[in-house]
Amino acid sequence: MRDSAKDPQRHAERMAHKQRIMRERIARAQNEQGLLLVLTGPGKGKSSSGFGMLARALGHGMKVGVVQFIKGRRETGEEAFFRRQPGVEYHVMGEGFTWDTQDRERDIQAAEAAWEVVHGMLQDPSFDLVLLDELNIALRYEYLDLDRVLDELQARPMMQHVVVTGRHAPEALVELADTATEMRVVKHAFKEQGIRAQKGIEL
Amino acid sequence: MRDSAKDPQRHAERMAHKQRIMRERIARAQNEQGLLLVLTGPGKGKSSSGFGMLARALGHGMKVGVVQFIKGRRETGEEAFFRRQPGVEYHVMGEGFTWDTQDRERDIQAAEAAWEVVHGMLQDPSFDLVLLDELNIALRYEYLDLDRVLDELQARPMMQHVVVTGRHAPEALVELADTATEMRVVKHAFKEQGIRAQKGIEL
Repeated sequence: MRDSAKDPQRHAERMAHKQRIMRERIARAQNEQGLLLVLTGPGKGKSSSGFGMLARALGHGMKVGVVQFIKGRRETGEEAFFRRQPGVEYHVMGEGFTWDTQDRERDIQAAEAAWEVVHGMLQDPSFDLVLLDELNIALRYEYLDLDRVLDELQARPMMQHVVVTGRHAPEALVELADTATEMRVVKHAFKEQGIRAQKGIEL
Repeated sequence: MRDSAKDPQRHAERMAHKQRIMRERIARAQNEQGLLLVLTGPGKGKSSSGFGMLARALGHGMKVGVVQFIKGRRETGEEAFFRRQPGVEYHVMGEGFTWDTQDRERDIQAAEAAWEVVHGMLQDPSFDLVLLDELNIALRYEYLDLDRVLDELQARPMMQHVVVTGRHAPEALVELADTATEMRVVKHAFKEQGIRAQKGIEL
């Protein structure tokens, strides 16, 4: 049941709501609406694509929020770079996940604390774009309630864009999304040959 | 023949050269080498992923070069944003392609002039990363000689990273690449429903 909404009725309501919103959008023939974009799949480029969209939004003078749901195991180049840009509010989830200690309760607490930050951004129309980096992982491990996440995404300000990255995007999230892209590995020579990731470039 | 190197002997030499380089790299067990990354496929996120890698590299204090092979039909948020960053040299191909006028000679001249800029970057070890945005399109239309492009990519400074974006990456380029990712469309609700791209977010 993880990949679909847990509560069928809420799911149906959400879909009906989405349909109403889409109809309104089409009726208004207005092309300025917040989009929900999902970047998933096993290939490279999910997070970097999200950060590229961030750069583009900043180029348009937008205000952006970033919440990273994984810490420590990742490149920190983006963090160093975007933290020093004006118009960026940047959060990294408290503890990161306890991949090694496997302390599930602590992970859940950390994910919920991070979602509280997201919750604030999703209620604040001054954020033009919110990047939820690796949120899909937190959903995959059920550290967050999927229905709550979907409801809050849907209830965000009409003009706000949200970008969600990470492998294994839940189906119900893709269903809610306006655009979803899957990154597929065509070739990963270095992995195949046992050479490790490169600082500053690999993702 | 477009998708493979035109000259089989040069192709064989290039592959032999690549194999020697890979062997050396593995022998040295050194994980600091310039990578050639290719981002292709019909889905979204190719260019934005390239620009995200740029941001990450800048976060590591690297110097980067950007040459955009398509102008005018694209979002310019990245250009506005990255032009004002220190450590970035940013070029947009002179005329853009003449999609409408179909003046092939002018396109070829513009592509060649852009490649001259790239040529300089690929000989300058002070560039830690070079982003060749939509180069694949110029190769697809044979505005540039593929063998020349591959040879010069291969002859670049050992530590220099290159990121190539655009649909329809030539096979010989993927073969030369260290990592290649294909972006696949999972869902494009707005396209399906006739709503146009969003300024500041769509790519």
